[in-house]
Parts: sequence; structure tokens; C-alpha cells
Amino acid sequence: MPAPLGFTGAWLDRADQLRTDPEAFATATADPRARCLTLDGIDFVPGDDGTGLRWELLDPADARAPMLLGRDERGIPYFVREPHPAQRIDARSRTVMRLLPLLSAQDLALYGGARSLVDWHARHRFCATCGSPTELFRAGWGRRCGQCRAEHFPRVDPVVIMLAEYDGRVLVGRQRQFAPGMFSALAGFVEPGESLEEAVARELFEEAGIRVSDVTYVASQPWPFPSSLMIGCRARAEGSALTLDETEIEAAIWVDRDEVRAALAGDMDAPFLAPPPLAIARHLLEDWAA
Amino acid sequence: MPAPLGFTGAWLDRADQLRTDPEAFATATADPRARCLTLDGIDFVPGDDGTGLRWELLDPADARAPMLLGRDERGIPYFVREPHPAQRIDARSRTVMRLLPLLSAQDLALYGGARSLVDWHARHRFCATCGSPTELFRAGWGRRCGQCRAEHFPRVDPVVIMLAEYDGRVLVGRQRQFAPGMFSALAGFVEPGESLEEAVARELFEEAGIRVSDVTYVASQPWPFPSSLMIGCRARAEGSALTLDETEIEAAIWVDRDEVRAALAGDMDAPFLAPPPLAIARHLLEDWAA
Ligand SMILES: [Zn+2]
Ligand SMILES: [Zn+2]
Repeated sequence: MPAPLGFTGAWLDRADQLRTDPEAFATATADPRARCLTLDGIDFVPGDDGTGLRWELLDPADARAPMLLGRDERGIPYFVREPHPAQRIDARSRTVMRLLPLLSAQDLALYGGARSLVDWHARHRFCATCGSPTELFRAGWGRRCGQCRAEHFPRVDPVVIMLAEYDGRVLVGRQRQFAPGMFSALAGFVEPGESLEEAVARELFEEAGIRVSDVTYVASQPWPFPSSLMIGCRARAEGSALTLDETEIEAAIWVDRDEVRAALAGDMDAPFLAPPPLAIARHLLEDWAA
Repeated sequence: MPAPLGFTGAWLDRADQLRTDPEAFATATADPRARCLTLDGIDFVPGDDGTGLRWELLDPADARAPMLLGRDERGIPYFVREPHPAQRIDARSRTVMRLLPLLSAQDLALYGGARSLVDWHARHRFCATCGSPTELFRAGWGRRCGQCRAEHFPRVDPVVIMLAEYDGRVLVGRQRQFAPGMFSALAGFVEPGESLEEAVARELFEEAGIRVSDVTYVASQPWPFPSSLMIGCRARAEGSALTLDETEIEAAIWVDRDEVRAALAGDMDAPFLAPPPLAIARHLLEDWAA
């Protein structure tokens, strides 16, 4: 049985009803037990013992708006602060990746959601409709334009990631920036005007030149770099001949179950290096090999 | 067997490779066969015989940028124009809903994608990061900031829509703005930091107060009002007692298979009016009743 998917299983109730109830939200921010997540930009800061997240009591003197992450089962509210306007955030930075093993699965999921939210605010201070400054509202789960009153909400970008299957093998590919030897499932953003199944078929044709049918859903995970929803699928390929889009895919190979199992086990003689544990691509391979 | 899902099955190859190849894109726009979709704002205009989409030859004298919808099997490129800056677009307008039966399923899907794209440009002329004007790039599939160079891409908002099941019945609810008597599957936007399965569980708890397990995926469809990806699921409820969020849900009822079949058949004595054919909620009910 595969491990829980990375970045799932956050331990807070999002308490959506507090977001739209100013009185209840004020009561929550005034709760003497209220906690605030300490971040360095959008990276997390380990707790005092070198692991876990760092929480501090919510400081009423801090001028940055508190954004509600949720409540625990004791009713304690948890927040994260809106980033400073001057704060420069590199959403593509993966420096935090090295630190992620310091977090439990539940803390990792909570951090991932908070990271996506803070990053979205840092990069959406202005109204895309009219160019005027926007202000945070809905307890941090939206921004509203001071000029045209347009409302903007945190973005979640759906991505399909899939294993095409043909004759007992699945297709894995590598991008130039991957670690040496690593191959993973192909993936791409879902576009306006297509279903998940259509996006899977389009991406596999664009990137590898193969036609597929029978797309099936396997699993999903949020991916906070910066804010994707990874939707893992399988599809049946109509043939194995490949025409690679070399701007996207450097190389691709068909691998059988024994080869996938060897890669997942980290065998020295496996034909490829498997994707890391937090990635849904690894889950797709585990699920298929099982 | 249920009909194909509404807004799926567009008949053009999106020809992604032309978007990033300026020379190939210039060749496509110069193709004397190139067509352009006629729109009234973001609503479609029926063809000469009163049905179908209206296409005209791409007019090189039109100053608005052509955005690539795709190519057909003969290689003919199809475009839609960037909206005029002065054009006011009401993305929430549903006036076009009355006209949709004039379109084939394939034209409907093509129109839906074009509508989402044009609408996105109309509401994203400025950079959310710095407030400066942006310019269209990637053949219409993105905008780039003239000041900070940030790149912005058309938004697709994933929404979970689901039937909770308990003891041979499923839960349907109604919002105030629904047609009288209509009940549908509950739904909500996926948020940063959660999987599809977690979003389904959260929405059902927030809106109806029920806890669920065993979330399974059923089907998906794009929904161009303005640009959602509807992800249809089922879930097993742990009980049938309801606590409704009355700001979202006016009423909710558990219905059995006979009642769902009666509603789908349009029976006068069905306990509710089923959602319309284009909606994935109807597909979820058909799939469950079958
Ligand atoms: Zn504005
Ligand atoms: Zn900018």
C-alpha cells in the first residue's frame, strides 16, 4: 500500500465560516491562544528542536493582516501573515525542498497550503482588470480592488500527470532540469475548454506523439510550487512509437513492471531513477507496479 | 449510456507548437484559408442559417491580435481576436445559455474554450504583480508585463462537484438562484493546499454538515462561466443528518434511485427538477441511477 500523498492531510479545519463573518473573525484574532506561522519569505522555519513548523502567539502589534489557516479541534485559531509589500519572493525557489523531510506529513500539508496562499498575495497586489492596488479580504482568501471593486481569489492550477500504458509497459520521460538519470510521468497544465481526459490525451500527443484512449483517474495532490493541483491518471496508448517534443522532453522510455519496481527500490541496475517520495509521479508508479 | 459531457469534444487540434514558434505562427495567420470566430463580446453569433458558429476569413486589416484556437485536419488555422480594450464584458452573463442548443456538441466545446480565453484577456489587461499594462504573447495563451516581465497564463479554476451517498440515496441541494424546484449536486472551488478528495470532504462538511469517506472520481468537464474545470465525484456519507450552511444551500434532500430516475425523465411527480443536460451534475445523477 503506497504512503499518503505528499502535501495532503493538513490537520486544521479551514473554518470557512469565519472568513465571511467579521465578528467571528475578530473574536478569533483576539483569542489569546491564537498562533501565527513563522515564515522566511515563503520558506518555513524549523521549530526550536530543529524539526516541525515554528508557531508563535499572534502578535497584535504586527501591522500585517492575519490570514486564517484554520482551527484545531480545541478551537485554537491558526494564522499566517500577509507578506510585507517590500518582501521579494521567488515562487520558483526550491531551496525549501531540502528542509521538507523535517516536517511530518500533516505539517507538510499545512505548510504547503500556507505557502501557496502567501505566495499568491505577494504576486497579486494589483488588480489584473484595472491595474489599481488591491486589498486583502475574506480573512486572506481573496483580494478586492479599491478602484473597480473586482474580487480576485487564490489561484489553483490544475495539472494532469499521467502514465501511458502499452503492452505491459508505461512511459516515463525526463526534462533537462531533472536530476541525472531521473525519469517521471509526463505532465502539463489543463487549459480552458478541455476536460481532464482531453488534457491527458493532448499532452501525451504533444509531448510524445502517442494517441491514447481509456483515461482513468488515479489520485490527486496539491503541489505548492507555486500552487498546482496535480491530477494523476493512466491512459491506454494505441502504439509505442514516440515523437518527442524536445523543447519539453529530453528523452522518454517504456518501462515494464520489473524495471519500475527496481527503480522504486533504488536498485543500482534499475534503468532509471524514480521520482522522489513527495511527488505524485512516484505514487502513480507504485500504484501501477502493485 | 449517458451522452458526452457538455463543453467537451472540441474539433480542433490546439497546435501548441505554433504558439511558441513566431515564424510558424506568422505563416498560419497569413494562410488565405485562416478563419476567425465572430463573437459579440464573449457571446457567440449564430451562422447564416441560424445555427452553428459564425466564422469569417481572418481579416489582416483588423488591428486586434489574433489568438490561435487550433488547426483542423486539413491544416486550416482558426483564430479568435483579442477583445477591444474598451469592450465591457460581463463574465457572469448567462444570456448565451438560451442559444447553446443551436450548437453541435463539438461547436459548443470549441466556443466554450474560446469564450473562457477571450474573457480572461478582457479581465487581465494589467499585471497583478506590479499593476502595469500587459501584452498578449504565446499566440494568445498568455500575457506578459511590459514593466516587470512577469508572465500570466489563462486561469482554470478546479471545482469539485459531488454526490454524497448514504443507504441507497444521494444528497442533492439547491441554491437560491436556481430555477424553482431544481436540485443539483453540491459543489465548491478547490483551494490551495488540498487534494480533490480533501476538497470534496471539506465542501460536504461545510455546506451540509456530513462527514464522508471513499471519495471516487466519476468524470470532468470544462465550464466556461467563466473558466472552471468541474470535477465530478462520489463519496460515502457516514450518516444522513444534515446541518446546512444556509448562506450557500437553501435546502437539501436525500433521494433514492427511483426518485432520481423520475427527475431525469422529467416526471411531473418527481420530488425535484433535475439539472439541465449540459451540466455535469446531471451526468453524475445519470451515472448513479444507471
Ligand atoms: Zn480593479
Ligand atoms: Zn508587472
